[in-house]
Amino acid sequence: MFNTFGNIFRLTTFGESHGAGIGGVIDGFPAGIRLDMDFIQSELDRRKPGQSKITTDRKEADQVEFLSGVFEGMSTGCPIGFLVRNTNQHSSDYDNLRHLYRPSHADYTYTQKYGLRDHRGGGRSSARETIARCVGGALAKLALRELGISIQAYTSQVGHIALENDYHQYELSLTETNAVRCPDATKATAMEALIAEVKAQGDTIGGIITCVIQGCPIGLGQPAFDKLHAALGGAMLSINAVKGFEYGEGFAGVTARGSEQNDIFYNHNGRIDTRTNHSGGIQGGISNGQDIYFRVAFKPVATLLMEQPTVDLQGNDTLVKARGRHDPCVLPRAVPIVEAMAAMTILDHYLLNKTTRLVD
Amino acid sequence: MFNTFGNIFRLTTFGESHGAGIGGVIDGFPAGIRLDMDFIQSELDRRKPGQSKITTDRKEADQVEFLSGVFEGMSTGCPIGFLVRNTNQHSSDYDNLRHLYRPSHADYTYTQKYGLRDHRGGGRSSARETIARCVGGALAKLALRELGISIQAYTSQVGHIALENDYHQYELSLTETNAVRCPDATKATAMEALIAEVKAQGDTIGGIITCVIQGCPIGLGQPAFDKLHAALGGAMLSINAVKGFEYGEGFAGVTARGSEQNDIFYNHNGRIDTRTNHSGGIQGGISNGQDIYFRVAFKPVATLLMEQPTVDLQGNDTLVKARGRHDPCVLPRAVPIVEAMAAMTILDHYLLNKTTRLVD
Amino acid sequence: MFNTFGNIFRLTTFGESHGAGIGGVIDGFPAGIRLDMDFIQSELDRRKPGQSKITTDRKEADQVEFLSGVFEGMSTGCPIGFLVRNTNQHSSDYDNLRHLYRPSHADYTYTQKYGLRDHRGGGRSSARETIARCVGGALAKLALRELGISIQAYTSQVGHIALENDYHQYELSLTETNAVRCPDATKATAMEALIAEVKAQGDTIGGIITCVIQGCPIGLGQPAFDKLHAALGGAMLSINAVKGFEYGEGFAGVTARGSEQNDIFYNHNGRIDTRTNHSGGIQGGISNGQDIYFRVAFKPVATLLMEQPTVDLQGNDTLVKARGRHDPCVLPRAVPIVEAMAAMTILDHYLLNKTTRLVD
Amino acid sequence: MFNTFGNIFRLTTFGESHGAGIGGVIDGFPAGIRLDMDFIQSELDRRKPGQSKITTDRKEADQVEFLSGVFEGMSTGCPIGFLVRNTNQHSSDYDNLRHLYRPSHADYTYTQKYGLRDHRGGGRSSARETIARCVGGALAKLALRELGISIQAYTSQVGHIALENDYHQYELSLTETNAVRCPDATKATAMEALIAEVKAQGDTIGGIITCVIQGCPIGLGQPAFDKLHAALGGAMLSINAVKGFEYGEGFAGVTARGSEQNDIFYNHNGRIDTRTNHSGGIQGGISNGQDIYFRVAFKPVATLLMEQPTVDLQGNDTLVKARGRHDPCVLPRAVPIVEAMAAMTILDHYLLNKTTRLVD
Repeated sequence: MFNTFGNIFRLTTFGESHGAGIGGVIDGFPAGIRLDMDFIQSELDRRKPGQSKITTDRKEADQVEFLSGVFEGMSTGCPIGFLVRNTNQHSSDYDNLRHLYRPSHADYTYTQKYGLRDHRGGGRSSARETIARCVGGALAKLALRELGISIQAYTSQVGHIALENDYHQYELSLTETNAVRCPDATKATAMEALIAEVKAQGDTIGGIITCVIQGCPIGLGQPAFDKLHAALGGAMLSINAVKGFEYGEGFAGVTARGSEQNDIFYNHNGRIDTRTNHSGGIQGGISNGQDIYFRVAFKPVATLLMEQPTVDLQGNDTLVKARGRHDPCVLPRAVPIVEAMAAMTILDHYLLNKTTRLVD
Repeated sequence: MFNTFGNIFRLTTFGESHGAGIGGVIDGFPAGIRLDMDFIQSELDRRKPGQSKITTDRKEADQVEFLSGVFEGMSTGCPIGFLVRNTNQHSSDYDNLRHLYRPSHADYTYTQKYGLRDHRGGGRSSARETIARCVGGALAKLALRELGISIQAYTSQVGHIALENDYHQYELSLTETNAVRCPDATKATAMEALIAEVKAQGDTIGGIITCVIQGCPIGLGQPAFDKLHAALGGAMLSINAVKGFEYGEGFAGVTARGSEQNDIFYNHNGRIDTRTNHSGGIQGGISNGQDIYFRVAFKPVATLLMEQPTVDLQGNDTLVKARGRHDPCVLPRAVPIVEAMAAMTILDHYLLNKTTRLVD
Repeated sequence: MFNTFGNIFRLTTFGESHGAGIGGVIDGFPAGIRLDMDFIQSELDRRKPGQSKITTDRKEADQVEFLSGVFEGMSTGCPIGFLVRNTNQHSSDYDNLRHLYRPSHADYTYTQKYGLRDHRGGGRSSARETIARCVGGALAKLALRELGISIQAYTSQVGHIALENDYHQYELSLTETNAVRCPDATKATAMEALIAEVKAQGDTIGGIITCVIQGCPIGLGQPAFDKLHAALGGAMLSINAVKGFEYGEGFAGVTARGSEQNDIFYNHNGRIDTRTNHSGGIQGGISNGQDIYFRVAFKPVATLLMEQPTVDLQGNDTLVKARGRHDPCVLPRAVPIVEAMAAMTILDHYLLNKTTRLVD
Repeated sequence: MFNTFGNIFRLTTFGESHGAGIGGVIDGFPAGIRLDMDFIQSELDRRKPGQSKITTDRKEADQVEFLSGVFEGMSTGCPIGFLVRNTNQHSSDYDNLRHLYRPSHADYTYTQKYGLRDHRGGGRSSARETIARCVGGALAKLALRELGISIQAYTSQVGHIALENDYHQYELSLTETNAVRCPDATKATAMEALIAEVKAQGDTIGGIITCVIQGCPIGLGQPAFDKLHAALGGAMLSINAVKGFEYGEGFAGVTARGSEQNDIFYNHNGRIDTRTNHSGGIQGGISNGQDIYFRVAFKPVATLLMEQPTVDLQGNDTLVKARGRHDPCVLPRAVPIVEAMAAMTILDHYLLNKTTRLVD
């Protein structure tokens, strides 16, 4: 509820784009996990602006400071507070936005809900909030790594340029080899060209991120409201600019017959296995040990470097044009955010599942 | 968490397909709402089996008994317990399923997670659990009605047969005039024919339900993890057989430019309005007063009236064929369930939003 | 929150004194626990009215029906719904209370909060709600029994008649051998005589219940807000008529010096032990493996069989005299309720503690 | 759960005594409250060490930095992150404690629960954690002030020196005029002398704090598990060194008859009032508009400046003597902490109560 995510593993975030910084508290993180600080910072670096020509030019250090819950490099089981100071904010870029509502931003709804808003850089609605998610996700990944669970996301579509094959057909470790984070080098080049073109026009473009979770044990998820895919879907839909979520065969699967979609069990050298994985690794809301895969749709971001009509706070028609430095396409930087939300969801359900039996 | 849905308005459900019944507790429901018992039962009747030729032949009365929280026809603010007794269970239809795992059902994952399962009719994983959601949804609708908020879902696709237009182009009140719950009579006839054909083959088929929420006040939803569409998406993904959720322009919108998708504010006769509603009524996670609309993808149900390979509990290859009475397509009966989950989500966020200001 | 107790083990209750019945949902109960139905009913019998001369004369069967979550005598891990039908309600005994506020009851505060109330038998504020707690507590005890944890409460004071010694000096198994549930037979006789005297006057009397938890493993409880004794205290204070809670040396210990109260660690035949247990088995909010003991103060119940001044709904002065059958002293019947709340608290924290480490 | 307090108003805390600092996130705080920073700092100053001869000599600035959720001096409705840096830690004072367990501290239980602990200054179990509670409490007080609700605690007993009268007999505004925070100047002098004597011996002493809440509206609290006094009691018992809680007549009231304790309603110049307030302002778990008053028992703190036997991590008998600067009696500094927990509880329930009715 409010700014807390998770049931057992719980991330509470705070911070605005142009305030003192972005931070949070990670609670319920297991004791005795070694925290690899280089890895954690590297996850933040994957998200940070200015990392390539197709992201915003803003330079932000995004250095995380841990404030508690870590002793001699190990998690203590106590809450882990952390803070990433804002260091390169150009608040004056936003002076012109104080008195108007940008189209398709949160300006209008925040003002109506709260009666006031911090207009600088979007305030609390800024995607800078996802820094805290990446810190939480990095810790979750460190715990999942000890369990043999891995999570890999990649850009599978930008505008009309889409990968034609499913994740099995790609070497996912190539994802980080290009700026757009796509494991298909040819498509990646085309995607980058499209983003550059859109950027030159002062416009923006959307796309799709695919995510694969491997090594997930059987039994995660709850039968009714907190089905594992419902938890994953809710987590993904909470990321800025996300408009859709599907797992397994998703929307495309609605046209198939049950006899085509059912995953047939068989005896695979003495082990129960399925011949296909249309289900996406989850049955009845509970992980079945197969790969979990899903897709997340991102709209083109609303901040344009071109003039648009809008209204001011009094409802008078006016024009707005963003100043400052903005992403023409959020996909490349959203890949680690999708992974972070997935990692936190899986760890949370792993811990929750430990309560299913009285004695292990 | 577990079997509870919601933050302030909270529905906790219990019950298995072949146990004593399905029931729940509605907590946090506002005091002083008149409960229209005929309306509540009519919502259950929309969900119940046996209502037409294209649903299962099972006959179940699904009569709800309220056990508490209602005094002289009014909600008291105290928890509302309710129970729908199971009355027409043919448990012996499932005897053959006790020792094997049905493909793409929860049989395998439940057994692995809990160490045992009630195999009769799917036990807790049965869609009969959604009876309790329809009761909760009916109460939520009664409260929303007092606020002028309406919710209407309809079948917009079955297999390849899809409505071509968006919800504005249909008279949504026609939804209940045919068995498939589609507001386009011609398409409805084609959908029904397709379902009948699939049923004759012992097979099943999926589809898409569209839902529209009108009259929602500005300000519902939370900025970070509990964005209104994340709450709606998580709620929809918790319904059996759902594989995807999208709102506003959804997946299709990823190919557009920001300049095409932004909803431009303008002065509409002295009132702030937008020229389009690509956003789907939610900006920055918070309702903006426009219509909220979204789409939910349902896979073809896994229970087939044809023989399929599978394994028994020991992992030996075997065959399975369902006996009993099953739906070839869940869409018609899922329409009220989608509405119920939407209604509970909106009421929960309406109540939560009342805490935003110290004094109204 | 609202009518749900617990974090992992969660009891949600519903029901009014003169409605259809009292029931609830137990969620998060571990799978695979054999449910001893005779034991569960016997716990309800310890609470039910009419069991002796010093309790109310009302006869209520208080038979529990389980509605879900149990399969072939075992818990399935799914929610356990249950219902105890009301069978012997004399609602007309309360007709005279509809239009007035009884002194020191919830009549006035409920009406102000909710705008209406079910006046019959106290409605939701009736202590009949504790039936559901006893069901939840009985299940929790069955789980704790498998862990070797036992819970025993007893009446240690009625009015001015108090046990002089602490729990070590008594044979606690004698608690159930007298109607007042006191392990000291002589004191028990005096307490019963006092209650009989008070009853003859139409008056009521309070007292203290002591509770001892033995066999609790080390490590239960959370460091900050959910210290184990804070959870126990909050649980006890939620029982009707409770006015105070203390654990370990409690209020009496405030006059001692630290050098007198500290529990000194020593090597006890190769095991770390303490020479005393002034702390009451909890240090820093976390169980230390010693006995946990605490005391709960109950006020004299507010329902008197004598005439008292009061006001009606319009604020006019009037008189009230209860009709019907009421307890002159709640202590004897509250003993199992104290145990039930303790059992649920300990089981909840036992399950929660399973999430402290990634791998056991 | 874990390190979060509250339902709507939610404080999540982090930090250890000798780590980077103590901080937290306040979520669910209403938008549009002016934050009086001088008042907030003054509340921290009431808690900080070194403020008088009878507290520890440690000097800590305890300056709070707000990191988010405040814009131009007003709360925005977004989460309020804050941090109080540790500045004067003498970690080497604790080197000798790394390998042993101090009597009646959390050293042993933490190590058993988590497998490791930060031994410096008690780590997470240090009462420095209450800094974050005082920040949360200060904000809650600012909101309550707008509602006309005031909260005043005072030291009513130190060792055997106790105030004889109830709170009506004192001028509570005198509480802050002496170091022990007792409104009776004569008793205060005696208490200070006792604390000085105990300190000279290297020993410690306990006591009782009384708290009064005035101006609380009718209707706060929930009927079953979250009765207002259960919430208050759980909150108080979560403060370090607290061993007991009682409200209204408390433990002393168990010897009275119902006819003596009932609070008789009467028509008080056209308004419904009660002739007494034995109930302590709460009936049926819900505030009735009268003063709420309660008492909190604190044990003598466990850290002694004298030698005590104990064991090391391997269970070998050894001796321990604290170095450093410690409080001989926590009561004076605990007064603002009791108030803080009370303020947060009342604000939380005030906000929760706003959801009781659909429309105000």
